[in-house]
Amino acid sequence: MPSRRHLANAVRALSMDAVQKAKSGHPGAPMGMADISQVLWCDYLSHNPKNPNWANRDRFILSNGHGSMLLYSLLHLTGYDLPIEELKNFRQLHSKTPGHPEYGYAPGVETTTGPLGQGITNAVGMALAEKVLAAQFNKDDLDIVNHYTYSFLGDGCLMEGISHEACSLAGTLGLGKLIAVWDDNGISIDGDVQGWFTDDTVKRFEAYGWHVIADVNGHEPNEISAAIAKAQAQTDKPSLICCKTTIGFGSPNKQGSESCHGAPLGDDEIVLVREALGWTSPPFEVPKDVYAAWDASKKGAVAEQTWNDKFARYAQAHPELAAEFTRRKNATLPDVWEKTCSDYISELQQNPASLATRKASQNTLNAYAPVLPELLGGSADLAGSNLTIHNTSKTIVASDASGNYVNYGVREFGMSAMMNGLSLYGGFKPYGATFLMFVEYARNAVRMAALMKLPVIFVYTHDSIGLGEDGPTHQPVEQLVALRATPNLDTWRPCDQVESAISWKSAIEKTDGPSALIFTRQGLPQQARNAAQVKDVERGAYVLLDTGEHPDVVFIATGSEVHLAAQAAEQLAIKGMSVRVVSMPCTSVFDRQSKEYRDSVLPPTITKRIAIEALAKDTWYKYVGLDGVVIGMDTFGESAPAGELFQHFGITVEAAVDAALALQR
Amino acid sequence: MPSRRHLANAVRALSMDAVQKAKSGHPGAPMGMADISQVLWCDYLSHNPKNPNWANRDRFILSNGHGSMLLYSLLHLTGYDLPIEELKNFRQLHSKTPGHPEYGYAPGVETTTGPLGQGITNAVGMALAEKVLAAQFNKDDLDIVNHYTYSFLGDGCLMEGISHEACSLAGTLGLGKLIAVWDDNGISIDGDVQGWFTDDTVKRFEAYGWHVIADVNGHEPNEISAAIAKAQAQTDKPSLICCKTTIGFGSPNKQGSESCHGAPLGDDEIVLVREALGWTSPPFEVPKDVYAAWDASKKGAVAEQTWNDKFARYAQAHPELAAEFTRRKNATLPDVWEKTCSDYISELQQNPASLATRKASQNTLNAYAPVLPELLGGSADLAGSNLTIHNTSKTIVASDASGNYVNYGVREFGMSAMMNGLSLYGGFKPYGATFLMFVEYARNAVRMAALMKLPVIFVYTHDSIGLGEDGPTHQPVEQLVALRATPNLDTWRPCDQVESAISWKSAIEKTDGPSALIFTRQGLPQQARNAAQVKDVERGAYVLLDTGEHPDVVFIATGSEVHLAAQAAEQLAIKGMSVRVVSMPCTSVFDRQSKEYRDSVLPPTITKRIAIEALAKDTWYKYVGLDGVVIGMDTFGESAPAGELFQHFGITVEAAVDAALALQR
Repeated sequence: MPSRRHLANAVRALSMDAVQKAKSGHPGAPMGMADISQVLWCDYLSHNPKNPNWANRDRFILSNGHGSMLLYSLLHLTGYDLPIEELKNFRQLHSKTPGHPEYGYAPGVETTTGPLGQGITNAVGMALAEKVLAAQFNKDDLDIVNHYTYSFLGDGCLMEGISHEACSLAGTLGLGKLIAVWDDNGISIDGDVQGWFTDDTVKRFEAYGWHVIADVNGHEPNEISAAIAKAQAQTDKPSLICCKTTIGFGSPNKQGSESCHGAPLGDDEIVLVREALGWTSPPFEVPKDVYAAWDASKKGAVAEQTWNDKFARYAQAHPELAAEFTRRKNATLPDVWEKTCSDYISELQQNPASLATRKASQNTLNAYAPVLPELLGGSADLAGSNLTIHNTSKTIVASDASGNYVNYGVREFGMSAMMNGLSLYGGFKPYGATFLMFVEYARNAVRMAALMKLPVIFVYTHDSIGLGEDGPTHQPVEQLVALRATPNLDTWRPCDQVESAISWKSAIEKTDGPSALIFTRQGLPQQARNAAQVKDVERGAYVLLDTGEHPDVVFIATGSEVHLAAQAAEQLAIKGMSVRVVSMPCTSVFDRQSKEYRDSVLPPTITKRIAIEALAKDTWYKYVGLDGVVIGMDTFGESAPAGELFQHFGITVEAAVDAALALQR
Repeated sequence: MPSRRHLANAVRALSMDAVQKAKSGHPGAPMGMADISQVLWCDYLSHNPKNPNWANRDRFILSNGHGSMLLYSLLHLTGYDLPIEELKNFRQLHSKTPGHPEYGYAPGVETTTGPLGQGITNAVGMALAEKVLAAQFNKDDLDIVNHYTYSFLGDGCLMEGISHEACSLAGTLGLGKLIAVWDDNGISIDGDVQGWFTDDTVKRFEAYGWHVIADVNGHEPNEISAAIAKAQAQTDKPSLICCKTTIGFGSPNKQGSESCHGAPLGDDEIVLVREALGWTSPPFEVPKDVYAAWDASKKGAVAEQTWNDKFARYAQAHPELAAEFTRRKNATLPDVWEKTCSDYISELQQNPASLATRKASQNTLNAYAPVLPELLGGSADLAGSNLTIHNTSKTIVASDASGNYVNYGVREFGMSAMMNGLSLYGGFKPYGATFLMFVEYARNAVRMAALMKLPVIFVYTHDSIGLGEDGPTHQPVEQLVALRATPNLDTWRPCDQVESAISWKSAIEKTDGPSALIFTRQGLPQQARNAAQVKDVERGAYVLLDTGEHPDVVFIATGSEVHLAAQAAEQLAIKGMSVRVVSMPCTSVFDRQSKEYRDSVLPPTITKRIAIEALAKDTWYKYVGLDGVVIGMDTFGESAPAGELFQHFGITVEAAVDAALALQR
């Protein structure tokens, strides 16, 4: 049996050789954390390389994602379907081994990491998911949900603000099965962190209510093992294991320095590392006994089988719960879903009402949530404004995690990246809210949801100058442009309660990416629609009204501006103009429709087009072209009652009418 | 002489009455922090209400900006030009008292606050500015820069991740004259914070190396005063004063509850508050003796005069330094500036070179920085990649702040909001860098710079799939669209070293808003230009080349795609097509040019237009219209060498040629 150090050296060799071959990458972190990984992965991690989707596996998150070769080496060595050829193709097109670990590329990669601080936050979300699912499903001794979530993180993660948000909340929520390991190597890209990072991290995490294990030598297997055991034993607080390590451990001339952080070691130095470590195998060759010692396939199969047996007993004792667990894990919507939606939307059609779409959103939650226990909601300390609490909401607290609502506190970024973790974990449809303005605090987590194609639902209320008196710091202008430009993300800005209910339906049914639901603070009238139009809302845009047979002008509007367009059309009809109003709640969904449908809504022959939206104009030139007009915002907002602001910024029925008349001239 | 409590009650009455009149706002925080404010503003704050721009005033930042009526009350009461009519017009259009304190509206508002956590971060930037300027200019006993920076902050600020970034760095930099006061009222919008915020804040800030004064009763003037004195006495660490307060203090039925956080108290409750506090004056009336006790005009005038005398002595002893101090404070560029730029740009014209624009940026810094000591640079732990360190860079550390470069660590948001503070303070032109992707971590601080029209320079390198192997998490796609949609922000994406130098020149000369400078990782060839073209770069877009007299097709390109467009044009010329290439490094600057100029660059008659940019396409429809073509990114990137990625995503000379030929058909 090879020594632990020798096993760890396999990781070091694979990592330095792959980075060298790719001519770019980060050898330092994998070489520094190899010993810790060896202990964790060989002795503690419960996983089955042959089934990376086993529900009760431990989760492992490499928050310092630039050290991707550490993870790829571990997956390869322990028996995942990640052959050595993939490691040779590190950072190359169409490989499973991109520069940072990307979810969906290699089996066993639980989340995409690289943007620092988000991995540990995903891990907090996963640990929360485990705790909630356990509280909802475990029965007596049948603990079908019971595992750890491990995360490695570096100094960079600890410097990022999001680590504060997530770790603070993890403490409050008592996520006792979260075990984080800090790679305390004292080096970041700019050099020795003493110049810019002097936190007492032990004290900081104690302040969050964590169980902190300080002063562990990250190259001493016994110390590492004892620390992990101690962390596992602490069940009511998350644990942080602080491991002193040497970055680039084994590199005679580069270890302990930033020179090995983000660049290949160089062929000469690699020769010296091999000598220093006593690693004689050529690049990308691993001795059989080393492979054998790392291989987790058998142990993993046994672990999963034990769990499968337990689940079978559970299914016998609690057949309905077991079926529900399986349904949620498979992300299948309940049988009653379709009917629930169509009944509710019909009801709204029959009972028109003027109300804020944020209120329409809450009404929708009241209608849908009772059949969707997988909905896990929350708000970043704006529940009463976002209207995210519904009749069946129950708050999750440390002592009772069986609920379906998280008080995230004023932590937009933490909330959003935790939702990504919840979604990745499975069994949940997370939604979380803040004001549309503060998507900016969370922006990169929204992008990560889109990049990973996670069906997370981001709820953003107070969606324009219509929020009124809070003023320009709180009034979105350019935010929707950014959301709409994000691949895989569908951004809905509904105009009334019917479109709101359909937006929620689309978001809940979406499986291949996130949705952003944009709602108003202020009340909006309900538009009249026939059944065909109701159906077409789901196509992202549709003809809301035509005042005549051959439209001279098309208005395109969203959300709070649709009723302005409709009123303008009616006034223009009186003047004898034939006007079409297109409601376009979701540009990306519309763009995915057939050309035939798109042309039927926006006939290419009609070039007199006017887009109206009380936000930055940039999105709309795509639809109105060089000859069209966009009525929107060119500046930031102001503090005043909403009605006055629409007048002040010229986003009015009169402006729409004037624009149409001007185009006709 | 009225009692301290009675003076504080003036703030409470003004705040609750103004919120009531506006029918919206946040009375709780002003009422809770009134006693603290009374002690600080009457006994400690050194300021001159008649000259809010006095260079050596103490800075006061209300980081919990929703409590804006606290600040407006203090400014009104102490003698700033903010008459009672403005308080009556709280939150109304064209008032000086918007819902959140907006820089540039009322005198004495040092920064715009409201987006939580950014105020304290601005304050960290200001305290750093004070420390740096003092180190650069103070001589012996002539300490012309010597004052405190105070910031109030609430639980929301402490929950936000940015507070971690900024306060951690403030500790490392030893900002001893920063004094923060935490309004520990235990309430946020969703209610009692115990459900979501259980940090041991004392311990947390001690972990950052702060001097923490715990357990101060925020309604006991003697305790407050002793704490401030103690904080002032600690000169090598920032201080946090933890004040236990009752939100909405004085409201019999609402104090201590979230009901007074963000809504008017109601007329009935206001009657009860008046009774409870013994405040008999009607709304918006303040007794003369109360005004007299608050008035800081005389004390302020004396303080400023004392400083003016000191500065006169300084000017006598150090005339050049005094002139330089004045120049920097006035944000006047040095006399040699114009020549420095034109010489450098001529030199580049005469010595064409192929290099990455990030390197061109560093070369520019080497050329410009020696004449601009106000340049204060930095990077969020990517100095070697962003190339932000120039030949005259000197790192600022706690023990020697006389330098001009900050190692911000991995803190993009903290860096950006600190730069806003540095800019607001005066005497500095801050620039700071990260990868373009990670503007997303800092996005709202960039917006705040734009909203406040601060001439901050945001440097973003690695600007597309051209960054290569780091993969999709690090490859920007939709980020430029968001930057370009931001009012007041000029976003430059230069195509070679000449455009890079001119972008820097424009950013440095800009006085009314921030600039974002976007640079490549990869090398780019230099384009040929005559003197007129060089001059026109500053107009945001210009004709780089025409292959014939009457162009059939126009290419519009930026940055790394300009040379593709130029090559395509040459190939098309061979095929007999007349093609124009427009380089458009800055869309917003181009949009501000005269219609005549814009039409000369993009003649309305030429509708066959092709935009090429290796980023999201949304910006470009405005310039190419419904008939045009945009060659760009529809998806996220991939991990591979840059050259392969441009091929993979079809952003090539061939694609440009094909698009032009297709348009001609």
